[in-house]
Amino acid sequence: MTVMKVQGKPTRTITPVPQAGAIDIIDQTALPQACRVLRLDSLEAVVEAICSMQVRGAPLIGVTAAYGVALALTSRADDATLLAAIRALGATRPTAVNLHWALARLQACLTPLPPPLRAEAAWLEADRIAEEDVQQCRRIGEHGLQLLRAQLGERGRIEIMTHCNAGWLATVDHGTALAPVYAAFDQGIDLHVWVSETRPRNQGLLTAWELHEHGVPHTLFADNAAGLLLARGSIDAVIVGADRIAANGDVANKIGTYLKALAARAASVPFYVAAPGSTIDFACANGTDIPIEERAADELRLLQGCDAAGRSAQLRQLAAEAAVANPAFDVTPASLVSAVISERGVCPASSDGLRALYPEKTHG
Amino acid sequence: MTVMKVQGKPTRTITPVPQAGAIDIIDQTALPQACRVLRLDSLEAVVEAICSMQVRGAPLIGVTAAYGVALALTSRADDATLLAAIRALGATRPTAVNLHWALARLQACLTPLPPPLRAEAAWLEADRIAEEDVQQCRRIGEHGLQLLRAQLGERGRIEIMTHCNAGWLATVDHGTALAPVYAAFDQGIDLHVWVSETRPRNQGLLTAWELHEHGVPHTLFADNAAGLLLARGSIDAVIVGADRIAANGDVANKIGTYLKALAARAASVPFYVAAPGSTIDFACANGTDIPIEERAADELRLLQGCDAAGRSAQLRQLAAEAAVANPAFDVTPASLVSAVISERGVCPASSDGLRALYPEKTHG
Repeated sequence: MTVMKVQGKPTRTITPVPQAGAIDIIDQTALPQACRVLRLDSLEAVVEAICSMQVRGAPLIGVTAAYGVALALTSRADDATLLAAIRALGATRPTAVNLHWALARLQACLTPLPPPLRAEAAWLEADRIAEEDVQQCRRIGEHGLQLLRAQLGERGRIEIMTHCNAGWLATVDHGTALAPVYAAFDQGIDLHVWVSETRPRNQGLLTAWELHEHGVPHTLFADNAAGLLLARGSIDAVIVGADRIAANGDVANKIGTYLKALAARAASVPFYVAAPGSTIDFACANGTDIPIEERAADELRLLQGCDAAGRSAQLRQLAAEAAVANPAFDVTPASLVSAVISERGVCPASSDGLRALYPEKTHG
Repeated sequence: MTVMKVQGKPTRTITPVPQAGAIDIIDQTALPQACRVLRLDSLEAVVEAICSMQVRGAPLIGVTAAYGVALALTSRADDATLLAAIRALGATRPTAVNLHWALARLQACLTPLPPPLRAEAAWLEADRIAEEDVQQCRRIGEHGLQLLRAQLGERGRIEIMTHCNAGWLATVDHGTALAPVYAAFDQGIDLHVWVSETRPRNQGLLTAWELHEHGVPHTLFADNAAGLLLARGSIDAVIVGADRIAANGDVANKIGTYLKALAARAASVPFYVAAPGSTIDFACANGTDIPIEERAADELRLLQGCDAAGRSAQLRQLAAEAAVANPAFDVTPASLVSAVISERGVCPASSDGLRALYPEKTHG
């Protein structure tokens, strides 16, 4: 595993190096204090990078898994190798559907081909998925920008709350929830972003880092403060990403999203979900069908409070004695979602709304 | 400042030592890894202990402030000294009304007395407030126990969610929200407590420590998970404490309480607030009148994630570059509170409900 240090935002979060039988990714567990690039040169390395969240964000996980298949087939591309790679990658994380969507697409593309052609075809298909992700996120930004612009109102300024990281780090480029924010900021719209810490993995720090690099004004807050901020009238709109959208518009996203949606509704603040079509799972009737990943208790223990007096070791010991529940996602019912922003436009979070945008996915 | 180490739960969280012109308190910033007693021997030490949250919890802050007045008057007890002490203590923390309630009670008791009698009277009055707190919390436990017993249902088991620490550490003894839990557990009721981490100060670790010492089964979770746990049907009742209850039943409590109340309502789970009469502020018409303390950004920065790789210093540096919002309390509207549990019984969180329990506080 080679490590390269980079400064600021790289062009893309993932770079194929097929001649080296490898891909370069940004190690998101090293951010925000260091932006370093890891070279992954085996299926096992890709599986580990996804499981450990060195690569994270639903769209980026999908793209990474596609390249993982290409890596797996580089030396040997028979049916058994293909299926084993798809199985290993598919078992990494259960909630984000983009992973399974990308693997199904690779499988459909490669299975009919004779093995000698599969590796090259896999690299090409992964490239296509990556390029589509960039274009889709760019379009999400454009569609979301119109929504934000319409909400500017007389004040001429907009206060946006987001949760977790759904910026360019979570995609190949641009981001999902943050794509409209960057688009609006780049057009000179006066905006300010409220960034939730996002315990237990603190992905809010990734968002704060992204926004800082881009020069976007922002304020960090503990997740617990979301209700007060919304009730006080400090927020004009909430925008989050998604890990899976069910056919009825229910949205699985980072744990804590649902609480923010409840508070947004109570404050009559619009709550938007930005995601590409690959995040919509028409095979999932509603949110109760979405598997929710339970992650290791260590995430609460290891990241548990650590103050200047160096209490971390003792806190870990204490926390190790208590049972810990650590679900990584929750489900926000469609009724709390004001609109879904996808690469095809803005639609209601409903069966009819999603079907109208993606008619080809719902026939039959 | 003398430090003594103690093992497990001491008899009371605060012990007057009038012959030494001092009080002994448990340093809650050292918990849970060390239970140590601090001797405070000046007004300044008491002010510092309250500001830094070495002493915390609305009822305990009130009692500590009362002893702080006694300490201040020990060497000199003229009107100016009395007023200066009340002013200094009253300025420590704005939200918990028990502080102002206790100071007003000391002022009313001491002002008519000739200065030479004031110090002894102050120690006695503080003792009375402390003793009342113990008895009130014990009765909150009894009244709350009836509520929990009524909810046991066919399953014969109850799952309780709490937020922050409203256990014996937050009072002189017994606790407020946890008093019914201890009462129920001690009577052999099968129960389990879901403990929120309570960012940014992680008081959930204090609650986990208390419950562990008492042998009560419990599970720690990140605040973000409260919505999912409630929506899943994992929780039968939520019980929290309060820092101030307005005349209409709106409740100021630790930041994040409101989000849990919203999620409890959405899941049709009862949401109880346990607090003594001294927490009810009949001079506050509703929650918008309650001042919300904004605490230092450092609380998010210093306690920011610290993992095995020792990232804390860098994370602090990053967080130091971002603006931070750190409100310490939020307001839960009365409409989301199923009942208030006080030392006088259980009542609706409404003007009529509170007045019926405290008729003497609302005349005129």
